[in-house]
Amino acid sequence: MYKDTIPQQSGVDQQLSSDMNGIKLDNTEEKPPTKAGKVNRICDAFLSVLKDRYSTNLQNLITAHVCKLPPDVEAGLSVVNDLRETQPDLADAAVEHVCFLVDVNRVHDSALGMYNLDLALLVAQQSQKDPREYLPYLQSIQELSQLRQRFKIDDDLGRHTKALQHLYSLKAIEELQTYTQKHELYSNALELYRYDEQTQAGILRLYADFLVSRNQPKEAAIAYTSLSLHSLASTAYRSANLWRECLTSALLVPLPANELTSLATDLAEHLVETRDHAAAATIYLDHLSDLPSALRSLCRAHSFTDATRLAALHARPHLIADVITPGIVEASATLTETLADCKAQLNSQLPRLRELRTLKSTDPLAFFEGAVTGAQDIPDNVSIAPSATSTAGGASLFTRYTGAGASGTLASNATRKTSKNKRREERKRARGKKGSVYEEEYLVNSVGRLIARVNEMSADVEATVEACLGRMGGSMRERGRAVAELMREVVEICQGCVEEVWEVGVKAETMPPTNGAGGNGDEETYRPQGGDAVLWESLEQSWRKNGPPTVKPFERSKLL
Amino acid sequence: MYKDTIPQQSGVDQQLSSDMNGIKLDNTEEKPPTKAGKVNRICDAFLSVLKDRYSTNLQNLITAHVCKLPPDVEAGLSVVNDLRETQPDLADAAVEHVCFLVDVNRVHDSALGMYNLDLALLVAQQSQKDPREYLPYLQSIQELSQLRQRFKIDDDLGRHTKALQHLYSLKAIEELQTYTQKHELYSNALELYRYDEQTQAGILRLYADFLVSRNQPKEAAIAYTSLSLHSLASTAYRSANLWRECLTSALLVPLPANELTSLATDLAEHLVETRDHAAAATIYLDHLSDLPSALRSLCRAHSFTDATRLAALHARPHLIADVITPGIVEASATLTETLADCKAQLNSQLPRLRELRTLKSTDPLAFFEGAVTGAQDIPDNVSIAPSATSTAGGASLFTRYTGAGASGTLASNATRKTSKNKRREERKRARGKKGSVYEEEYLVNSVGRLIARVNEMSADVEATVEACLGRMGGSMRERGRAVAELMREVVEICQGCVEEVWEVGVKAETMPPTNGAGGNGDEETYRPQGGDAVLWESLEQSWRKNGPPTVKPFERSKLL
Repeated sequence: MYKDTIPQQSGVDQQLSSDMNGIKLDNTEEKPPTKAGKVNRICDAFLSVLKDRYSTNLQNLITAHVCKLPPDVEAGLSVVNDLRETQPDLADAAVEHVCFLVDVNRVHDSALGMYNLDLALLVAQQSQKDPREYLPYLQSIQELSQLRQRFKIDDDLGRHTKALQHLYSLKAIEELQTYTQKHELYSNALELYRYDEQTQAGILRLYADFLVSRNQPKEAAIAYTSLSLHSLASTAYRSANLWRECLTSALLVPLPANELTSLATDLAEHLVETRDHAAAATIYLDHLSDLPSALRSLCRAHSFTDATRLAALHARPHLIADVITPGIVEASATLTETLADCKAQLNSQLPRLRELRTLKSTDPLAFFEGAVTGAQDIPDNVSIAPSATSTAGGASLFTRYTGAGASGTLASNATRKTSKNKRREERKRARGKKGSVYEEEYLVNSVGRLIARVNEMSADVEATVEACLGRMGGSMRERGRAVAELMREVVEICQGCVEEVWEVGVKAETMPPTNGAGGNGDEETYRPQGGDAVLWESLEQSWRKNGPPTVKPFERSKLL
Repeated sequence: MYKDTIPQQSGVDQQLSSDMNGIKLDNTEEKPPTKAGKVNRICDAFLSVLKDRYSTNLQNLITAHVCKLPPDVEAGLSVVNDLRETQPDLADAAVEHVCFLVDVNRVHDSALGMYNLDLALLVAQQSQKDPREYLPYLQSIQELSQLRQRFKIDDDLGRHTKALQHLYSLKAIEELQTYTQKHELYSNALELYRYDEQTQAGILRLYADFLVSRNQPKEAAIAYTSLSLHSLASTAYRSANLWRECLTSALLVPLPANELTSLATDLAEHLVETRDHAAAATIYLDHLSDLPSALRSLCRAHSFTDATRLAALHARPHLIADVITPGIVEASATLTETLADCKAQLNSQLPRLRELRTLKSTDPLAFFEGAVTGAQDIPDNVSIAPSATSTAGGASLFTRYTGAGASGTLASNATRKTSKNKRREERKRARGKKGSVYEEEYLVNSVGRLIARVNEMSADVEATVEACLGRMGGSMRERGRAVAELMREVVEICQGCVEEVWEVGVKAETMPPTNGAGGNGDEETYRPQGGDAVLWESLEQSWRKNGPPTVKPFERSKLL
C-alpha cells in the first residue's frame, strides 16, 4: 500500500550531522547490511542520542522515526501524542513536521489505526481538506463504544483480521459469522473459537460450504465429517474421488440399503474404468458381496494369491478354476503382448540411435542442419512423430549453427521473433521429429520411459509367473515360461543398452554451441535465446546429467 | 575340464605355409578379432582349400581341425572314421597324428563321446596303456543295447544332461528319477516330461522336497501347490514368511478350525512384531473375526479411513470412539515425537557441518590432519560415533597428506600394509568419527537419511492430520495442528539446507589429493591405495555426484 519513499532531508541532514559527533555505530551484525538495515541503524543511533530532547531536537527526533524503512509513522505520532498534553505548541509543530515528511493521508490512517481520534483530528487539520469532509466521520466513530470504534476503524482501514478480533471481543457471533464469510476469514475465526466447540462448529459448517463452492471437496468433506454431517461428507468425498471415505460416510448416515448398493456399484465401476482394480475388488467384496467380481478384479490387479485366499476363505474353491485360472491366463497373455511390444520398440529404436550418433560424430554439420540421411527410409514406428516434408526448419537450423560462435549476431535479433521461434522449436522438440536434431533426445527419453515401464511391470510379471507355476495342466507352466523368458530378454536388452544410450563415460560437452561460447571465454554469461534456447536445453537436457536409469534385475524362477 | 592348449606345431606350420599361397582370408567380421577368432579363421581357410585331399594333406587337415580354439577333436576323429573303412592305413596314420597333437586320454574321451567304440579302441591302441586296462571296459559297453551304451558313456563322461535324455528314451522312469535326484537335474527332467503331466508331477514332487532341503521354501511351496499338496505347501510358505499363501494353503487342505485359528494367530502376532500392521489387520479381520484388533492394527498402519469404513460396515460404529480415536491420538503422539527428534538432529548437525566446512576452507591442513578444533566440545548426539581419544589415526593422516602430491612414495609402500590400513580406514569411515576427515561425509549422509525418512513419513502425517481434523472435541484439532506445524517446520529446514549440505553449484574438486594428482598430469592413472583409497573414495563419494535428494513438499491442510 505504502511506498518506501525517503522524503527530502538534505536540510535536516546538516543539522543532524553536528549532533552525530562521537556517535559510534553498532556494526557487529553478521549479514551484509541492506539499504534498509543501514538506514534504520543510523536512525536508531540518532534516537538513542536525541532521546527526550524534545525542546531542542524535536524535528530530528521525528525525522529519525519517519525516515526508517518502512517509515515508522506510528512512533512519530506517539511523540506527538506524548507532547499533546504537556506541550501543546510543540505537538502542533511536531504533527506539522510529520505531515511534511509523509503523505498526510497516510499519517491520518496511522493516527486512526492507533485508535486515537484526537490525534486523527489533529492530523486532519494539517491537511488541506474541508472539515466537512472528515468531521462527520470522526464524530460518527466517537459515538460508538470503544470496541465498536476499533472494529469500525480496522474494518475501514482494511485490517480485517483485527476487525474480526473486535467482533469476537464484542461476542457478536452472528455478525462475526457474516464478516468471516464476507472476507473469507475462516481460519482466523476457527482459531478465535478454539476453546468454544459449539461456535467453532458453526463456523466450520460455513467454511465447509465455502470449500465446496471453491471446488475443494476433500477439505470440505473432512470438515463435514468432524461435524457428523455424513450425508454432505459422502457427497463431497465422492466429488474428491475418495471412494473409501465416501462409502464410510454413506454407512454412517446410514443410507438405506438400496442407495448404498447403487453408490457402491457406481464407485466400483468407476474404479474399474480408472484401472484401480484392487480398490474395485474391495468394494465388490465388502459392499456388494459379489465374490466372483472381486476375484476378477484382484486377478486384473495381479493379486492372484489374495484372490485364491478369498475364494478359499469364503468356502467357494470352485471359483479358483472358474474365475482365477482364466484370470491368470488373461494376465499372462496381456503381459506377453506388452513385453513383445517393448522388445520390438527396443529393436527398432536402438539401431536408429546408433545411426544418429554415428552421423553426429562423422558429419556434425548435416546433423545439426537436420538433414539426416535416411530420415525417409526408417520405418514409422521408430519415432512416433511423422517425418516432416518441409525443409524450412532444417534450413533455419543450418544458418543458425554456421554462426553459432558469434553470440553478437544472436543478441541483435533477440527481439519479438525469438519467442515465436521458441514456441515453434518447443513444439518440434516435444514431437522429437524424425530427422530433426531433437530425435536423439526423443529416442533416449523414449527408451527411458520404456525402462521405467519394464521396472514397474517386474512385480506383476513375477506374480503371474508364480501363479502359472502353481497350477498343473492347461499348459500353465508353458505360459509362465513364455512370460518369464520374454521378460528376461527385455531386461537383458535394457541392461545391455543403458551404458550406450546414456553415454556413460562419454563427456557431453562436444556440441558446437557450447564449444563456441566456451571459446569466447564468456560461457557464464552467454545464453542463447528463442529457438536456439530450445536446442540449447535439449543439448543440456537432464538425461546427460542425471545419468542412466537403473534396470531392475529379473530372476527367473528356479522352477522353470 | 579341458584346457585350451595349442600343441607344438612349428614343424607343421612351415609345411602349411606353402599350401597357403593364394588363400584369401575372409576379413569382413565387424568385431575386433580375438585370438581364438583369428586362429579359427585361419584353420577354416586351410580346411576349405585342403578339403578331401586326404592322400596328400592328411596331417595338415587333421592339424587344422585340432588346432582350433577350443580343439575340434571330434572333427579330426570324423576324418579318421571316414578313412577307417576306405583306407585303413591312412586311418592309422591319422589317429596317430591326432594323438600326437592332443593328449591321448582326451582323444579317447572324444571317440567315446561320439558313441564310436571302434574308434575308441583305435585311439586306446595308440596310448601306452595295457589292453587289460581298456578292453574290459569297452567290451562291457559293447554288450549293452544302443541307448544303454550311450547312457553309460555319457554318464561316465560326466555328461549328465545327455545321459538323462537317454534314460528318457529308455522310458526308465524310476531310474530317471533317481538319476535326477543324484545329479540335481530337476529342470531338465521337467522339461523332458513337459507333455506327460503325471510323470512331470512325480519329478516336481522330488524337486520340491529337494528345494525344501536347500532352504528355498518359496519355490518348493509353489511346486507343492501345483501338485495340490496344500499341507506341505502351507508349511513351506510359512518358512518363506508368506502369510497370505500360507493361510490360503491351510484353508485348501482344509485344516481343522482350531488349527487354522492357531496358525492365523501366530502369523498375525509375527506380523505385528515386524510392524506389518496392514497385513496383521487383514488376518485379524478375515481369519480371526477380531474386528477390534484389526482396527487397532489399521490405526498403527495409519489407515484410519479403512478402519472407520470397516467399523461402519460391520455395524459397530461404537468402535470408532473406543478404538480408532485412541489410535489416532497414539499415532499423532508418535509422529510428534519422531518429528521433534528430526528437528533436533537437524539443528545440531547443520551447524556442525558448517563449522567443519569453514575449517576445511580456512585451515585445510588441520582438517585433513583430523585435528578439528572443538571436536571435544560438541555434544555427543551430533555424530553418533564416539570421539576418539587416541591421536594415532590423526598423525598418520597428517604424514600421509603432507606428501600427497608425490604418488611415487605411495606406490613404493603399496604392499602388505595397504590392505590392513584400508580395513582400518574403512571402519573409521563407516563410523564417521567425530573430528576425523570422514565426519563431513557422515553428516551429509545422515541428513540424507533423515530427509528420506521425512519423505516417507509424509503420507502418514497427512493421514493422521486429516483424521484429527475429521473429529470434533478432545482437542483433536489441536493435535492435528501440532503434527502439521512440526512437519512444516522440519520440511522447511530440510528444503532450506539441501543446497548448502549438498553444495549445489560448488565444484567438488578442491581437495589436496585430487589437485596433487591433477598437477602431475597423470590424473587418469594415479589411484591411491590402502587407507588412502578410502579417503579418496570418501572425497569422491556419491553425494557429490548424484546431487541433492528431493524434499517432498508438505502442504498444511486448509482446515488448520
